[in-house]
Amino acid sequence: MADDAKQHALDAHKEWHGKIEVVSRAKISTPEELAVAYTPGVAVPCLEIQKDPSLSYEYTRRWNLVAVVTDGSAVLGLGNIGPEAGMPVMEGKCALFKTFADVDAFPLCIRSNDVDEIVRTVQLLAGSFGGVNLEDISAPRCFEIERRLKETCDIPVFHDDQHGTAVVTCAALINACRLTGRDLGDVKVVFSGAGAAGISIARLMKRMGVKDIIICDHTGAIYEGRDGLNPVKQEVATWTNTEKVQGSLADALKGADVFVGVSKPNLVSQDMVRSMAKDPIIFACANPVPEIMPDEALAAGAAVAATGRSDFPNQINNVLAFPGIFRGALDVRASDINDDMMEAAAYAIAGLVDDEHRAADYIIPGAFDKRVAPAVAAAVADAARKSGVARI
Amino acid sequence: MADDAKQHALDAHKEWHGKIEVVSRAKISTPEELAVAYTPGVAVPCLEIQKDPSLSYEYTRRWNLVAVVTDGSAVLGLGNIGPEAGMPVMEGKCALFKTFADVDAFPLCIRSNDVDEIVRTVQLLAGSFGGVNLEDISAPRCFEIERRLKETCDIPVFHDDQHGTAVVTCAALINACRLTGRDLGDVKVVFSGAGAAGISIARLMKRMGVKDIIICDHTGAIYEGRDGLNPVKQEVATWTNTEKVQGSLADALKGADVFVGVSKPNLVSQDMVRSMAKDPIIFACANPVPEIMPDEALAAGAAVAATGRSDFPNQINNVLAFPGIFRGALDVRASDINDDMMEAAAYAIAGLVDDEHRAADYIIPGAFDKRVAPAVAAAVADAARKSGVARI
Repeated sequence: MADDAKQHALDAHKEWHGKIEVVSRAKISTPEELAVAYTPGVAVPCLEIQKDPSLSYEYTRRWNLVAVVTDGSAVLGLGNIGPEAGMPVMEGKCALFKTFADVDAFPLCIRSNDVDEIVRTVQLLAGSFGGVNLEDISAPRCFEIERRLKETCDIPVFHDDQHGTAVVTCAALINACRLTGRDLGDVKVVFSGAGAAGISIARLMKRMGVKDIIICDHTGAIYEGRDGLNPVKQEVATWTNTEKVQGSLADALKGADVFVGVSKPNLVSQDMVRSMAKDPIIFACANPVPEIMPDEALAAGAAVAATGRSDFPNQINNVLAFPGIFRGALDVRASDINDDMMEAAAYAIAGLVDDEHRAADYIIPGAFDKRVAPAVAAAVADAARKSGVARI
Repeated sequence: MADDAKQHALDAHKEWHGKIEVVSRAKISTPEELAVAYTPGVAVPCLEIQKDPSLSYEYTRRWNLVAVVTDGSAVLGLGNIGPEAGMPVMEGKCALFKTFADVDAFPLCIRSNDVDEIVRTVQLLAGSFGGVNLEDISAPRCFEIERRLKETCDIPVFHDDQHGTAVVTCAALINACRLTGRDLGDVKVVFSGAGAAGISIARLMKRMGVKDIIICDHTGAIYEGRDGLNPVKQEVATWTNTEKVQGSLADALKGADVFVGVSKPNLVSQDMVRSMAKDPIIFACANPVPEIMPDEALAAGAAVAATGRSDFPNQINNVLAFPGIFRGALDVRASDINDDMMEAAAYAIAGLVDDEHRAADYIIPGAFDKRVAPAVAAAVADAARKSGVARI
């Protein structure tokens, strides 16, 4: 960023003095009003909730309230910067929840990187919230934290860095395939990046019918039996790269239909794009500098290119997913955000780009397209009902 | 409560659908605004806070944010009703913080009654807040939780059920003594109730110069050497009841100047009031039914009577204390809320009732007197500076 943009960001944050605020919905200006909102009147809903805890969704804010939880270990690309320094991002996330889907979200930055402590903290507070959005927790701890919380909490738990990214990337893939006349079942997808995002995108693509997936880490293609794989990558190897392709990213990309980058700048050359199948699809999402700049990819023959950047077309932006996903989950008091709901969200986002307007520079809606959150929420709520996790 | 009042309280809570709400202070309606409030601009304050964590008070909401923490173990008079059922009270508390002192407060109901777990949870989240208000945690656990958190957190920790009650009761005592021509150093005070509130009131009175204090529990006066005292009461016995008076509450009250009830309905008779010193002061704060009704106390010769009820004069209401106390502590970024600050708060509340207006039915300001919170905040901030706990 330029120095003046940096100064502007600091000035804006100083002026906001916090990007969120907690306000009172109860008018308390007379003794009579005080006696209803607080003692003695407040005892009545307390006793009702004690009899039936589900009434906490009627008499308190729980029905609309999401905890945005981090340990500050993987904030943006900044590394483990701790709870206080992670807070501007978490407050920003909460502001996006409210702005895009009228969800009340509150940031909780936990001063521990210990899996047990993070899990326990969230479990102990789960009764105060209607959902949990995990944010910027480093891999592989994020997988275990999410798994254990999903098993033990009766409210939806969602790790946006994994699943939000997966939903939006899959939405882009749906329309890129429609645009280039491909079926999801026939495409070969090669990933650069085997972190939380890459694995989660691959998992959702597989669920949506993609059969041929190769994930590359910094040493090349991951395949069953490769030396030195950690447990997460060992598991990944069991359901990707069925032909056990070995070699570098450049080797893996030959003949591939789709590239998905969630890794580092400039890892993909124009020659690598030229080595792919005809009309390749390039999603280069390293931020702020992508694996290959979209204009270079297009010049090398790519049929469509997407990035994480707002200054190019086709921005893969999680804000298309998480507000509507939680809106839908909260609206039906879902106990989980499951794969059905994520797939429904991806198709809902993709469906907003109709046949007439779909183009190489328009495969996903813009971040401020007001149709997105309601469409995602409706699809997610419907999928929650059909998959049996809706409670109202 | 009458049935129609109960129904009204339920209806109001249903209509509020949560007494608090989290809103965005950042306008995010364009890609440019998004790029400042979220990526990439948000990285700038993150990195500044990483270099200097105290900047979290400049760039995030921490400067104005208080956690209202409970385990739901002593909610109102309802007992251990758990985290969900305690939430209406905690949301109400947060609404009062905002309404009376523009403090952002957020409720955290912890699903555990284990001291270690509660302490650890708050420690792990302390970096997200500027202060902690403990609420409705049962004795004696509340004492250890508060002590350990005060020792380990660098933000103010305040147990309102103890200290808020103490501040307001002491404010009332100051003016009751002024009204009846007594010095704090000369009065004999007898308590009914040896819970968190009673002990804390007694402690602040002692600090403010009251020398002769007897605390009675359900078996009578607490004195050093009494059989079966728990550790908390053993400690209390070392600094109260120096003459080791034994016997019932009725025995202890003979010749006393002040009665403070934080116990149960109807424990004090008119004969007991008549046995006290001339012009006795009666603070009968059991809720909703006091130890003696104020009109009965006055008929039996009391010079002044106060209760916890809003339908009689002289309501001892914590809302006179906690909003202004936290406002003052936050304003100077205090690391603690210490005894100096509490004493200053008591004198600030008392000082709002001037000589001209002070009367048997007006020894403390009303809950909606708009002068209270600013006066308390100013006095508390000043005391914080003088006692060395202010950080700005």
